[in-house]
Amino acid sequence: MAHPGSTQAGRVMSNNRAATTQQSFPMNGGDGPHSYLNNSNLQRKATDACRTMIEEAIAQKLDVKCFSSNPFRLADLGCSVGPNTFKAMQHIVEAVERKYLAQGLKSEMPEFQVFFNDHVANDFNTLFASLPTERRYFACGVPGSFHDRLFPESSIHFMFSSHALHWLSKVPEELLDKNSPAWNRGRIHCTSAPDEVSHAYAAQFDHDVEIFLNARAKELVVGGMIVLLIPALPNGIPASQSPFGVVFDLLGASLMDMAMEGLINEAQVDSFNLPVYSASPEQMTDLVKRNGCFTIERMELVYPTSKLVDRFCGNECGMHLRAGMEGIIAKHFGSGIIDELFDRFSKKFVEFSHQLESSKRGGAQLFAALRRK
Amino acid sequence: MAHPGSTQAGRVMSNNRAATTQQSFPMNGGDGPHSYLNNSNLQRKATDACRTMIEEAIAQKLDVKCFSSNPFRLADLGCSVGPNTFKAMQHIVEAVERKYLAQGLKSEMPEFQVFFNDHVANDFNTLFASLPTERRYFACGVPGSFHDRLFPESSIHFMFSSHALHWLSKVPEELLDKNSPAWNRGRIHCTSAPDEVSHAYAAQFDHDVEIFLNARAKELVVGGMIVLLIPALPNGIPASQSPFGVVFDLLGASLMDMAMEGLINEAQVDSFNLPVYSASPEQMTDLVKRNGCFTIERMELVYPTSKLVDRFCGNECGMHLRAGMEGIIAKHFGSGIIDELFDRFSKKFVEFSHQLESSKRGGAQLFAALRRK
Repeated sequence: MAHPGSTQAGRVMSNNRAATTQQSFPMNGGDGPHSYLNNSNLQRKATDACRTMIEEAIAQKLDVKCFSSNPFRLADLGCSVGPNTFKAMQHIVEAVERKYLAQGLKSEMPEFQVFFNDHVANDFNTLFASLPTERRYFACGVPGSFHDRLFPESSIHFMFSSHALHWLSKVPEELLDKNSPAWNRGRIHCTSAPDEVSHAYAAQFDHDVEIFLNARAKELVVGGMIVLLIPALPNGIPASQSPFGVVFDLLGASLMDMAMEGLINEAQVDSFNLPVYSASPEQMTDLVKRNGCFTIERMELVYPTSKLVDRFCGNECGMHLRAGMEGIIAKHFGSGIIDELFDRFSKKFVEFSHQLESSKRGGAQLFAALRRK
Repeated sequence: MAHPGSTQAGRVMSNNRAATTQQSFPMNGGDGPHSYLNNSNLQRKATDACRTMIEEAIAQKLDVKCFSSNPFRLADLGCSVGPNTFKAMQHIVEAVERKYLAQGLKSEMPEFQVFFNDHVANDFNTLFASLPTERRYFACGVPGSFHDRLFPESSIHFMFSSHALHWLSKVPEELLDKNSPAWNRGRIHCTSAPDEVSHAYAAQFDHDVEIFLNARAKELVVGGMIVLLIPALPNGIPASQSPFGVVFDLLGASLMDMAMEGLINEAQVDSFNLPVYSASPEQMTDLVKRNGCFTIERMELVYPTSKLVDRFCGNECGMHLRAGMEGIIAKHFGSGIIDELFDRFSKKFVEFSHQLESSKRGGAQLFAALRRK
């Protein structure tokens, strides 16, 4: 496997080269009203819905006896700024401690080291300042894209990534080519788009996940585990019938309204595409099997009881969307449009609440527990 | 050894408890005109003066054969925001690579992982954004005081700390007690102070170094090495005859002038003390021997060719002092006095250049290479 993060001495760590071609879209930093820190409870609820599944994966599938060395190293890939990552890491540490006790290894209880990873542009200062004072682990921040190597070979025992892997490493290039059948005119996503656009998104996701799994296969110890939570589509359901799809359609329509009123340029909308993608369990299963380095210990859809599709939460949904998307939108359109855009979005959200309501059954997240062979 | 960073499961990592009692004095962040990033070339020159000594310590005293596991883990304690830390880490990585080659271990050349440590309040965002793109190591940031545990047991192979260990974990409490003979009225440091003040500073340094060495002894693998560079005093030379001592006297005198003119309150000066201390080689040797976990591979004074005592660099010296001290001074006196204070300091620096000139022979830094037994 010719992975760019070679172990040979004298080679440059690939993470850095990648930084020049990949795109970075950090969540809103700081602790202000529009920060991810204050607008991420939907993600927390979605993660909470999988708490028991994470516990079960550790209790039933993680054989800590095969890990000879102290400490136990744990990573959160795409952690953002908290507080969700702290809850998840604490939960995993406690589940691993219970596993050591259950396997009769009390005397070999390891120290824990947690690596918080996100893009270089992530607000690590806020992350570090809000680290829980009562944590039972040594904390590190790891700047860099998880679409490349982040850690030395065979150095991590457990990885976690929640609501991060659906971010593509970049917008598929053909979407921006006016001569391509995948030119995505008048839309900002593959939802409700021609097949060529959807295929371009799917191909980019396949490529990114392949790179992701290759890197993680290098970094995990044999027997190590990775748990992924990602927004997903049930097999056979089109994006336009999922809450995420509807939300992106409404955001795109809000931008097009602004273009019609001359507040922004229509060509700007044509050249803007959200680099996020919801995979189906079938697609993820294929990708993991094709990679070949992991056994699938569990892969299933979860339907979190989310307020996302609640009739009255247009503003809350807008705030969450803004915390995650403001950076990338402002970079393309300028920060001057942000307030106006999300104001329009919130109104559209209420107007189209029936469509959101009927998209509920497409509102799933994928839980995947993979074990390094 | 009852060290607070216990390895027992269920214990809280001590680093966090300590945060509530210790004081944090980060260098100026960002990349502006008063940033440490743009005002740290004196420290760089001082480190450069020891490049060969670092290389020799690695070539002659670091037995990489005894390190069985990939990767090679390296830490910079008190790294601030760069660029000095990047140069130092690159230099050490290259020296270790040469050592592997010299020991005939080309096929076992490890990957490198570098842990950049500084206080939680350090500007890690700037540090991460300025990481060299061509680095040959995986990078992590580790927030926390090195006066406590930072890493899991036996997990680091080489540690480095330059111009950091002279910062005390806190101002000795008796300096603030009006009824104590160590009350440090009208001064901001132990330079030119009564013996009681100097003893209080020395005792705090002893205490801090003991904690530092205990923590590092836990974290380093057997055979691992720590290289320390710290501003120091030749044996028997009083602080008042060193450039640092003179500089602190001038800064204190500038504050007292401002108090006399009513710009600040004299009581504020009485209650302000810089928590930095220059040890002698004799004192450091005693501390390492008393700790008992390390062999002293090399310990000597270096007299870097520094511009510090140049007749015409009052402004440059002021800028460097400001990059390091602005935070702590502004916290005590308010940020409104900073420009005025350093303006006065620069003038005093020129006025007392003869005193600085004659303090040259006291302007040393201590190089110490210690090996974990």
